[in-house]
Amino acid sequence: MDAYSKIKSWMKENEKELIQLLVTMVREPSTQINEAGVQRIVEEFLLNMDYKVDKWELGGEELLTHEEFLSARSSFHGSPNVVGVRKGDGNGHSIVLNGHVDVVPEGDLSDWEEDPFCGKIKDGKIFGRGSTDMKGGNAAMLFALKALQELKLPLKGDVIFHSVIEEESGGAGTLAAILRGYTGDAAIIPEPTKMKIFPKQQGSMWFRLHVKGASAHGGTPYEGTNAIDKAQIVLTSLKKLEKIRNDRITDPLFEKMPIPIPINVGVIEGGDWPSSVPDLVKIEGRCGISPEETVEEAKQEFTEWIGQLGEEDEWFKKHPVKLEWFGARWFPGSIDSEHPLMTKLTANFQKVIGKEPVIEAAPWGTDGGLLTAVGNTPSIVFGPGVTNMAHFANEYIEIEKVLQCAEIIACTVFDWVNVEKEGR
Amino acid sequence: MDAYSKIKSWMKENEKELIQLLVTMVREPSTQINEAGVQRIVEEFLLNMDYKVDKWELGGEELLTHEEFLSARSSFHGSPNVVGVRKGDGNGHSIVLNGHVDVVPEGDLSDWEEDPFCGKIKDGKIFGRGSTDMKGGNAAMLFALKALQELKLPLKGDVIFHSVIEEESGGAGTLAAILRGYTGDAAIIPEPTKMKIFPKQQGSMWFRLHVKGASAHGGTPYEGTNAIDKAQIVLTSLKKLEKIRNDRITDPLFEKMPIPIPINVGVIEGGDWPSSVPDLVKIEGRCGISPEETVEEAKQEFTEWIGQLGEEDEWFKKHPVKLEWFGARWFPGSIDSEHPLMTKLTANFQKVIGKEPVIEAAPWGTDGGLLTAVGNTPSIVFGPGVTNMAHFANEYIEIEKVLQCAEIIACTVFDWVNVEKEGR
Repeated sequence: MDAYSKIKSWMKENEKELIQLLVTMVREPSTQINEAGVQRIVEEFLLNMDYKVDKWELGGEELLTHEEFLSARSSFHGSPNVVGVRKGDGNGHSIVLNGHVDVVPEGDLSDWEEDPFCGKIKDGKIFGRGSTDMKGGNAAMLFALKALQELKLPLKGDVIFHSVIEEESGGAGTLAAILRGYTGDAAIIPEPTKMKIFPKQQGSMWFRLHVKGASAHGGTPYEGTNAIDKAQIVLTSLKKLEKIRNDRITDPLFEKMPIPIPINVGVIEGGDWPSSVPDLVKIEGRCGISPEETVEEAKQEFTEWIGQLGEEDEWFKKHPVKLEWFGARWFPGSIDSEHPLMTKLTANFQKVIGKEPVIEAAPWGTDGGLLTAVGNTPSIVFGPGVTNMAHFANEYIEIEKVLQCAEIIACTVFDWVNVEKEGR
Repeated sequence: MDAYSKIKSWMKENEKELIQLLVTMVREPSTQINEAGVQRIVEEFLLNMDYKVDKWELGGEELLTHEEFLSARSSFHGSPNVVGVRKGDGNGHSIVLNGHVDVVPEGDLSDWEEDPFCGKIKDGKIFGRGSTDMKGGNAAMLFALKALQELKLPLKGDVIFHSVIEEESGGAGTLAAILRGYTGDAAIIPEPTKMKIFPKQQGSMWFRLHVKGASAHGGTPYEGTNAIDKAQIVLTSLKKLEKIRNDRITDPLFEKMPIPIPINVGVIEGGDWPSSVPDLVKIEGRCGISPEETVEEAKQEFTEWIGQLGEEDEWFKKHPVKLEWFGARWFPGSIDSEHPLMTKLTANFQKVIGKEPVIEAAPWGTDGGLLTAVGNTPSIVFGPGVTNMAHFANEYIEIEKVLQCAEIIACTVFDWVNVEKEGR
């Protein structure tokens, strides 16, 4: 029996254990600052496989002063990263398997049909906050590694498993793992892609604009300048910038996306009294970043665009719109479409699923951007969850997809780490 | 010496007392629910002039269930209205002198150079919250009545002095006075008009619009519908409605106003996350109402306009914009430009100031709208304050204007109440 068939059989025989692992992970409500419980489960799982485990709380000058460090937290006490390493038996390529354990808050409880952390199984699905984003993917990876370990398959390259915190808030967990040396020749991140393969990922950054007006009584609005009117000019101008930025994108991986790198206006707030002319409007949004540009290039273009608003409307010459970058920022990421890890993942997908995978660019960023840009580890995003369920009430994941993903990852890791490096 | 000369001399001789009265009133911080102190001062002043005083806390079924009753308060305990009446000596016309004692909150204290309730005198001005809006006018009226009383000038018609609460919040104080029977043949309200005479007043009403979208991730905004985009269509449409409504206005009293009855958008709020497509935007604003239309007519036109948004954009057919009327509403008010009270006020203005008064329409509503619409008492707005100072930090009033206004009102009351009614 070849390795692939052994993996398939092992998966079938052990699927109940995989389901149990995932349910246990979902039941740990690992919202920000509450990640310790789920990390203990991961740590134990890795130790049982004889992985070398490094568990540490984020900190230290190198991390905290790193130019890409981004976090609203002043302390990571009680929120450890966990990394497990299995050194290769020979001179193979190393692989990073990266997943985050932090989950977004459960939101309005009344929108949930069940307790968000119940981990209930129903109709072939496991329900709960974080099931799709991305404990399903994490369990798939852990299970893939367990298959390889129990089957005693030879692995020539290092396997480095990242169980990180803070992905939902800027990526400090993955950055810490990179700075601690846990990088590799390539990476797989099983974020919820609905089993699509994403060799490129859109990055993004958050902007805040302050649009000024001049207040007046609403009975004589012509004595002032309505900041909401001026905000409309800014919003229209952002649409123009979005068009210019997207017209440049010719990569076929983006061809199914009507707007590959959108400028999304997510928040608007202005004025506080119906009978007054408002003198300030705040606009917040997310600007997509193409894998073909750096964060800095995107920022510069955006900044110059806002700076030129005075040419559209005289008001902005005397009252320039103030631009701030704030909150989250995700690096764009990419791996060559012809990269051997892509080829192997694609082949194993076909073998397990029986059809060609959909290969596209990701419409959102992951920690793969940091792995690419800072960790020099090209990354593929491929996972079992459904993107649309992430961050929503009644989040769930389909068990069958988790099992399929575990099998594909096991086969792909086996293939990749056994490709020997040249010149040693 | 004729009555006018007597009044002028009396004013000159007693101006210190007027200033002291106004300072004392300003020092009473009569924001909503804190009106009792200033009302005690008014009550005492009226009693000292032998006026018949009625002081009562608002309430009772007739008021609370009246269709024009509008208040966010559930109780008026400790917030009395005060009305003083001097019955006429003969069959003259009656006059209502109406002023509100409630003042808007002082706002951000750091914007004030002095304590907002200091009543400090400097450079011929009295400083403090409410000095312009409208304790200066109230003091001028009280002083006018005191002049008439002390000079023992004959007054054939009734003089009814309203010292009301709640003008800033919907007019419940004036409505209560009207329902208690304190109406008259005509009224003067010395709100801050900068000594202009306003025979017509713009009314206004507050609207709230809920513009729906459909949420999605900001990386794939085309999977949703951005409520901020849809709100822009609504805002543009409101501008069209504003133009249509204003193009109808031909009254020369409005000719100096670029937009006689504006639709002011004062508040916009939508979305709560930069990376999400917002599914709801709230817009709040004030719609001006012409003296030539009723509140109901204006509401109907506005409602129909919003209902037709589906013809501008298909989205609104399935997701109609929700319209609410909320909060404040001021009736438009008017008095015939040829009304004898107008003629007399104009003549006395010329006599006292030495030049023609500016006669315009008011760009905002006052309790004169209620007096006109519910109390059948046509009203003129004319007062010493500067509109632009109302509701702002470092509010002040010029003492000279208060004195001039007191003299003009005294002469005008004297003239008007001594015009005998026909047929008795």
